[in-house]
Amino acid sequence: MGTSSQLDTEIAARLKRDANGLVAAIAQDHDTGEVLMLAWMDDEALRRTLATGRATYYSRSRGEYWVKGETSGNTQQVKSVALDCDGDALLLRVEQRGPACHTGTATCFTGRELPLGVQR
Amino acid sequence: MGTSSQLDTEIAARLKRDANGLVAAIAQDHDTGEVLMLAWMDDEALRRTLATGRATYYSRSRGEYWVKGETSGNTQQVKSVALDCDGDALLLRVEQRGPACHTGTATCFTGRELPLGVQR
Repeated sequence: MGTSSQLDTEIAARLKRDANGLVAAIAQDHDTGEVLMLAWMDDEALRRTLATGRATYYSRSRGEYWVKGETSGNTQQVKSVALDCDGDALLLRVEQRGPACHTGTATCFTGRELPLGVQR
Repeated sequence: MGTSSQLDTEIAARLKRDANGLVAAIAQDHDTGEVLMLAWMDDEALRRTLATGRATYYSRSRGEYWVKGETSGNTQQVKSVALDCDGDALLLRVEQRGPACHTGTATCFTGRELPLGVQR
């Protein structure tokens, strides 16, 4: 009825967007439980993700939508999406094809640990 | 040498903070792999977390630091912290005591799934 390209209004009402209209989106590997990456979504990116089952984010640096893996082939098939208690974060459980990180590492956190317990 | 309460400068240089000086912090259960919650950290919250091993966040709504579980008892003992490839997200692997969510659910995403594949 004329709402074909709008995010569901009940879902939209639950989103707590930042000053740029975005919420954080965590992608987790559905099989291994590994946290793969964090990216950002606005209402339209979430709508596309829910409608297509392909993880679609909003790039803050490029100012555009991107379907994960569209150029690299390292796609994310979405198995579930959940919105957290205060509406500012999404959790996507995905089937990740290939490495999740654009640097080629399995996840965006792989090999990037910070030292714990260093008293300065 | 007078730097006792500063975040390590090499780590600080890698952070890509938002307009409020914050980065996203994902907490994941070290044992089960469950994603528990997403909160926010500034340099000082990260410094405290790394130094003490207790997850310490910055509350955007209250404008103050909070040690997770300080009032509820549902603490997070930090096992590791990693910074992602572009410096705007942290992944904390934690030993979670009790439910992670202030609503009493196991995680902040528990029971909050959005409908997938609904074409409107």
